[in-house]
Formats: sequence, structure tokens, C-alpha cells
Amino acid sequence: MIVVIKIGGAAGINQNLTGLANDLKSLVDAGNQILLIHGGSAEVDALGERLGVPMRYITSPSGVRSRYTDSATMEVFIMAMAGRVNTELVRQLQVVGVKAVGITAISGGMFYGERKTAIRSVEGSKVKLIRDDLSATLTSVDTALVEHLLAGGYLPVVCPLVLAQGGEVCNIDADRAAAALATALRADQLILLSNVPGLLEDVSNPSSLIRCIRVGEAESYEEIASAGMKKKLAAAVAAVRSGVKRAVIADGRVEAPATRAIRSEGTVVTP
Amino acid sequence: MIVVIKIGGAAGINQNLTGLANDLKSLVDAGNQILLIHGGSAEVDALGERLGVPMRYITSPSGVRSRYTDSATMEVFIMAMAGRVNTELVRQLQVVGVKAVGITAISGGMFYGERKTAIRSVEGSKVKLIRDDLSATLTSVDTALVEHLLAGGYLPVVCPLVLAQGGEVCNIDADRAAAALATALRADQLILLSNVPGLLEDVSNPSSLIRCIRVGEAESYEEIASAGMKKKLAAAVAAVRSGVKRAVIADGRVEAPATRAIRSEGTVVTP
Repeated sequence: MIVVIKIGGAAGINQNLTGLANDLKSLVDAGNQILLIHGGSAEVDALGERLGVPMRYITSPSGVRSRYTDSATMEVFIMAMAGRVNTELVRQLQVVGVKAVGITAISGGMFYGERKTAIRSVEGSKVKLIRDDLSATLTSVDTALVEHLLAGGYLPVVCPLVLAQGGEVCNIDADRAAAALATALRADQLILLSNVPGLLEDVSNPSSLIRCIRVGEAESYEEIASAGMKKKLAAAVAAVRSGVKRAVIADGRVEAPATRAIRSEGTVVTP
Repeated sequence: MIVVIKIGGAAGINQNLTGLANDLKSLVDAGNQILLIHGGSAEVDALGERLGVPMRYITSPSGVRSRYTDSATMEVFIMAMAGRVNTELVRQLQVVGVKAVGITAISGGMFYGERKTAIRSVEGSKVKLIRDDLSATLTSVDTALVEHLLAGGYLPVVCPLVLAQGGEVCNIDADRAAAALATALRADQLILLSNVPGLLEDVSNPSSLIRCIRVGEAESYEEIASAGMKKKLAAAVAAVRSGVKRAVIADGRVEAPATRAIRSEGTVVTP
């Protein structure tokens, strides 16, 4: 089975890495092809703080919040994500005996994109146009490199960067990148791990987990989703709509998080 | 032909990257298998400065100077080298059409080592014992991953990190790492590019280049070599002694630096 697993992000990466690494080891040993893709916004924010580079966010007119990535922020982003987070994941995996290979998605021409040259940002009552943001829309996903690595028995650990048409390295939302990668790989499952058990009917009640969503009904759940969860739900739905057999939004903090997600512990999105 | 190319380091990485990238493109197109391994000490120093992490050096009783890498420095090292330098090299190569893959040498269990648990450091008239240095001696080089990448038509861009037996990520001298990699790969050539034309008879006179050194005579040249050049000469000699057909210490600042080195422009070390 081909499984694309995305880990965040918001909760920091050190929380349950040994548990995840051991879990991935058992999944690889059982013959699965696993690809890991990571966020790391907490690490990016922490490094920005240390370097005195202010971390700013853009809120689109439709209410979506994203990182404002000017060139100083992109530099921080690359050092924290491709440097620190990616290396630490590879280290943890190698220590438990998984043959992990850390790459960014500009390697091997994996992610190409178009830079968003003018982004509308709501600031108070005004809408400003931002022109120096280094984020991109994916235009092509080439899976040749990760397929070559998987065929060699390696577990790719992917840092989501995009090479734009002008040669700039750009930022992309990691959930969306994971969905695009799972789609292009024709993955059996996309698993989105975070610091909640899945989509909750009532955010304050962890036992109000919504266990299954059909893509056709997904829209009706958007209202109850937080901003971060909205992105995960959209990524899960996009992947399943494009042919991934199922997507699971699940808890990354538990023992054997990926195995549990594969066993449907979390919010399962199905066709 | 299999060619391992090491670029430094000291001169910063932005100097002649487009020239190098175009050169590597032509070498790859001509059917050569190229592996790039990089230093990046100028970038490490710059990031350390920005973060307020003091960069310190150790001088061994025999006069060899090396970076003192405590855990705060290692963090800086990883972010600058595996994050910034490696990603920038991959970007430049992809932009000119080379299928480059940036990895650290802990990926795929490539470099394993033994951490130096007690290092003698000369400080004034005293010799201190340093116990928290995260640098390692290479104990094994596994070329399976880079050979797999080369076989797939990729150009590996390697950041020299070592995984120590205790699971720590450690630092290693990049010239020595390049020599070990060239040896393990049974490379036809090892090319060490830096900001000088090669070994100079007289450091202040660039036209005093020593064109050829047989490994048997290498010792007699050590005296005239600067500290940085001593390391390069030792790496070149070690590689050739271990079976690499020849090593060239050459200028990275010129047009087509790798092609020129292959054509013997530089100091050529032969068996």
C-alpha cells in the first residue's frame, strides 16, 4: 500500500517523533511504501523570532489566513524547514532503522509552480495588494524522484518547497502539497496528522469526533471546522476527489499514529 | 566518468554558482556521473553571528584548527548548511536543467561515525579537554543511496553530516568527507574547488601554481600549504592513496571550474 503521511506544523515536531518513527518502521517492514511530508510552522516562527524577522500573516478576502513570505521570511523558512525539521525527522527515522531520505520538493523538479504575483490582503477595513510574497500555486508534480526512492526501499521525507517559473524558491501550504503528492502518486491513503483527534463536532469535546465524511457531504462540515482544520478538510477532499482511495485526518500525538489512522481512528474522508 | 566535486566553504556560495551549475550541466550531458558535496562555513558563521551563537575554534596540539561544534553551534550548522546552502545549490542546478537532489549524508545511512568524546584543545599555554564537541570520525560510508540516485540520472548534492553511534548528528570536515565519498564510490576524479588556483609555491603569487604532485612526494609540500590548503592536500592524498585515480585542487571562481579542473588546471595529485 502507498501511504502519504503529512505531519504538522503547529504542534512542533519533537512531541512524538520517536513514536512516529517506530510506527513507520513497522509499516515499512510490513511492505508498505511510505512517504512523509512535513510542515514546521512552529519552528519557522521560533527561528524568525530569534533572528528578529517578524512573522506576518495574510488574510484573504474570503477569510483564509496564510503566511506572508517575503524574501527574509523565505530564508528563515528554508533554514527551519529544510534544515532543522527535515534533518531531525531523517535522524529519528535512521535511528530506528528506517532508510530515510530527506529532500525538498525542488529536488528532481518535483514541485513546479507559479508565484502569486498579487495577493489581496484584508487589513482592517482596507484590502491591500501584496506583490513580494513568495508563495506559489502548484502547476506540476513530478513523482519520478520519489518513486525512484520508494523503489529503492527508501522512505522519502519531503519538505514542501516549490520552484517558481522565475527560478525563485517559494512556499506552499503543506496540507495542499501533501494532497497533490498523494494524488500524483495514486496513493492508497493520505494521512494528515495533527494535534487533534480529527474533525470534532464540538472543538472543546474530543469525544465528538466525526468518524466518516463522504466527499459529497464535505461542504456541510466546513462550518464547524477551525481555520487549520478547514485546510486539512479541503486537502483531504481534494485528494479523494482526484483518486486517492481515502484520506484520514488523525491524531499525531498518540502511540502508533499512522497505524491508528490506517485503522480509521480519526476522521475518514471517502469517495 | 564518476567525478566527486567539493565546493567550499570559505568564499561563500554565491560567487560563481551559475557558472558552476552550467558547467555541471555540460558534464552531465556528456555522460559523466557527478556528485557535488559542499562546505559552507561562511554561511554558518554568518548565521551564528545573526543568532548570537559564538563561533569558536579548536586548535589541536599538532596545530590543526577545527570548528568547536557544541549543540547550539550544531543547530546553526544544520540550518545554514542543510537548509540554506544545500537548497541554494539545488535551486541553481534545477534552474539550468540539472536533475539535482539535495540530501544530507545522514540520509540512507550514508555516513556513520564515532563522536570524538574528548578533544585536546590548545588554549594559550594550556591544553584543555573538550567533551561536548559534536564532531565525528567517519567509521562507514554507504554509497547505496548516491549510487541509486546516479543510476536514476540524478546529481546528488551532499551536505556532510554524520550520524554518530549515539544517534547524534555530528559535524565532519567537508574535504575529508569528499575524499571518503570519492574513495567509496571508486571515483575517477576528486575535485576540490576553492578560492585559490591550487597549491601555490608562493601564496602571494598566483602564477606560482604547483601543477603536479605525486602522493609519494606530498609530505614535502605540506610546509608551504596554508591551514586550509593542508586539509585539501591531505584529502587529495588520502583519496588517491585509497584508489581514486586522481585529485585536483582547483579554482572555483573561474568560468567552467569543474571542466577546467578535469583538464588539469590546478594542482593535480596522482598516484
